[in-house]
Amino acid sequence: MASRSLKHGYLLYAQSGGVTAVINTTASAVLTRARTRGVRVLAARNGILGVLREQLYAAWRETPAAVRALRHTPGGAFGSCRFKLGDPQKQPELYARVIDVLRAHDIRYFLYNGGNDSADTALKLSRISAELGYSLACVGVPKTVDNDLAVTDCCPGFGSVAKYTAVSVQEAALDVSAMAESSTKVFVYEAMGRHAGWIAAAAGLAGVGADEAPHLILFPERQFDEAAFLARVKATVVRVGWCVVVASEGIRLADGRFVAEAGGTDAFGHAQLGGVAALLAEKVRTKLGFKVHWTLPDYLQRSARHLASATDAEHAWAVGEAAVDLALAGANAVMPVIERLRDSPYRWRVAPAPLCDIANREKKLPANFIRKDGYGITTAARRYLEPLIRGEDTPPYDRTRGLPKYVTLTNRLVEPRLPPYAITDK
Amino acid sequence: MASRSLKHGYLLYAQSGGVTAVINTTASAVLTRARTRGVRVLAARNGILGVLREQLYAAWRETPAAVRALRHTPGGAFGSCRFKLGDPQKQPELYARVIDVLRAHDIRYFLYNGGNDSADTALKLSRISAELGYSLACVGVPKTVDNDLAVTDCCPGFGSVAKYTAVSVQEAALDVSAMAESSTKVFVYEAMGRHAGWIAAAAGLAGVGADEAPHLILFPERQFDEAAFLARVKATVVRVGWCVVVASEGIRLADGRFVAEAGGTDAFGHAQLGGVAALLAEKVRTKLGFKVHWTLPDYLQRSARHLASATDAEHAWAVGEAAVDLALAGANAVMPVIERLRDSPYRWRVAPAPLCDIANREKKLPANFIRKDGYGITTAARRYLEPLIRGEDTPPYDRTRGLPKYVTLTNRLVEPRLPPYAITDK
Repeated sequence: MASRSLKHGYLLYAQSGGVTAVINTTASAVLTRARTRGVRVLAARNGILGVLREQLYAAWRETPAAVRALRHTPGGAFGSCRFKLGDPQKQPELYARVIDVLRAHDIRYFLYNGGNDSADTALKLSRISAELGYSLACVGVPKTVDNDLAVTDCCPGFGSVAKYTAVSVQEAALDVSAMAESSTKVFVYEAMGRHAGWIAAAAGLAGVGADEAPHLILFPERQFDEAAFLARVKATVVRVGWCVVVASEGIRLADGRFVAEAGGTDAFGHAQLGGVAALLAEKVRTKLGFKVHWTLPDYLQRSARHLASATDAEHAWAVGEAAVDLALAGANAVMPVIERLRDSPYRWRVAPAPLCDIANREKKLPANFIRKDGYGITTAARRYLEPLIRGEDTPPYDRTRGLPKYVTLTNRLVEPRLPPYAITDK
Repeated sequence: MASRSLKHGYLLYAQSGGVTAVINTTASAVLTRARTRGVRVLAARNGILGVLREQLYAAWRETPAAVRALRHTPGGAFGSCRFKLGDPQKQPELYARVIDVLRAHDIRYFLYNGGNDSADTALKLSRISAELGYSLACVGVPKTVDNDLAVTDCCPGFGSVAKYTAVSVQEAALDVSAMAESSTKVFVYEAMGRHAGWIAAAAGLAGVGADEAPHLILFPERQFDEAAFLARVKATVVRVGWCVVVASEGIRLADGRFVAEAGGTDAFGHAQLGGVAALLAEKVRTKLGFKVHWTLPDYLQRSARHLASATDAEHAWAVGEAAVDLALAGANAVMPVIERLRDSPYRWRVAPAPLCDIANREKKLPANFIRKDGYGITTAARRYLEPLIRGEDTPPYDRTRGLPKYVTLTNRLVEPRLPPYAITDK
């Protein structure tokens, strides 16, 4: 489609919170769609911080080739941030500053790509801009590996970390099973998920049946019982010969403390050194006497664009396109979300949802996704999860270097039009 | 080529030591080539332990489809072991037992797929069989992620862990760079390599120039100096805004102790909980005050068949084929190794090398591969490493499950022909 004549006003795109393997896929869709629709895109450097500081990149000047490569590049191409705009009653000056910057650059569309907090920020901004009489279309764009956003069936970013987790557990299990007879018998995999066990649940896709890995999944939704855990590990080693455990970083004791934090106060030394997997491994080693290995993939799991799920990448692209269309249509305080139409064959579409239904809410793993014994996933969970890791969206590789061809944008800042501003909240 | 008439005697294949992403590629080549050459293959369950216990799989009965799928399946399909046959003078009964089992099953060719220790075992067996008047062709087949085998230019298994490491560091660095402004500023990646820094060096391929990640690589070949390390991290954060550190698990203090072990005796609590990355991260956090994340990929790095290097897979296949050909040609006490002919364009071939030149030796990272300041790799290292991670050997994926289609062999044991045997060394 040929470019239409340029629209009035700029579109501002910003990334917020922890990045994912496909947040730049969304960014690429935003830039591509905006170009088609004839609107110029600015991108905030490091999320809302860049707005406050009037650090705005002229993203619309990036070459088409760079924008295409952005689609398969992990990380956050414009920088993200962990900074939440607080209560407008208490920090009216922060919101006023944001509006000042938007006005100074004739920004009429604001796309905030993030999770619960970002939805909240976008919602507040839409209200304040209305109060201040500044015409602005505020659209949230979903993103989070944690999959804990309300309303949407799933979050772009989650499918890829889910695929990474299932594949990694499947592969490591083959390793452990080969070595178990005379070496490592127990392997512990620590999955992200401070409050919800979505990522740990995805590990369950690696195997089917009680004897396939992972043999035990520990969910933050279930209270951790050390004695029961150790008994299950032992029974699995006796029955299968080895045992793979997937633990959510957020599992808790009966008193509500995180297992990882509680570790610091007992015989296990500094919990912050290891986290949950290290602590569980130490318990298995000292109390059961099995040789044990453990892994903490940490950021690798959410940046593994080389193993991205095609479904996830399609979702990420679709919400980016839809966000531009919603904004240009004048929609406000909405988020394009993924709506599931069918499990099998998997069918979905993008639909707008009000930000007020999403902001600051948190979606836990449904109770019927966790097996009755608390250590595995159900058929319902498989039905939900499987389509999300389906398909591979492999980046192109450099034939000489042997690495994915990831792009670094030029990220040229536009000239500030306002006096410098100090963020007092920091 | 049509199968020739069956040869006299069986070929026994066994896997030893830590498995790799491509040891089964070698196994697949052995089975495929042996079938073509008309010799039947038995495979020992769990390496030499299976020989001692007379636990032998009828690998030649596996279907062609299973053998093809084996080519792209990680782990060790027949099981591996950490068990070294000791001094034949001290344990003559173990060697006699091995020969008894080989004789009972008419095994005339023995392929031992492993590292230094396995080369030593194969070498000793070749001598003992000659002493005992049992005609046996003993061939070592190279395999190790550590890349520390002598004579061979590289070890099958290393190229894939090298590619995993470079890609993972490249991807995590994009994540960290996006978050650094208001979140994690330092990221520490722990690479395998207890005695040699080959895998850590491969991380250096992720970036070029002083400001690209990894900014610091810590090699076991260089003494760890905490003050100098912290000063470099700080300088990098000041200059670049963030810092990615890759640490070999085997880095040591001035007094020769492993950093990871020394951690257990100071204020950092139990070193075994974390390992090197956790300890370094804690030092960065407490002494520099930066927010820090760290990863311990552990077995994920050596089982990541989904990210295997095509060069590595080709090497693994070629040494398997060559081992069969060498054995059937009556070669003894040899190993097919990789000989590099040219760096650019990369050219290589397989050539036989005497096991006595390989057994129990260890190849360190050459001094000219480590930058003068000790924290990075040189152009010579890049020239050596780059071809090894070139190309992708992606496994086929299951379209429904979204996972690689890895195979589990039937692994049917053949009937024992000898009385049970207790391994007294265990």
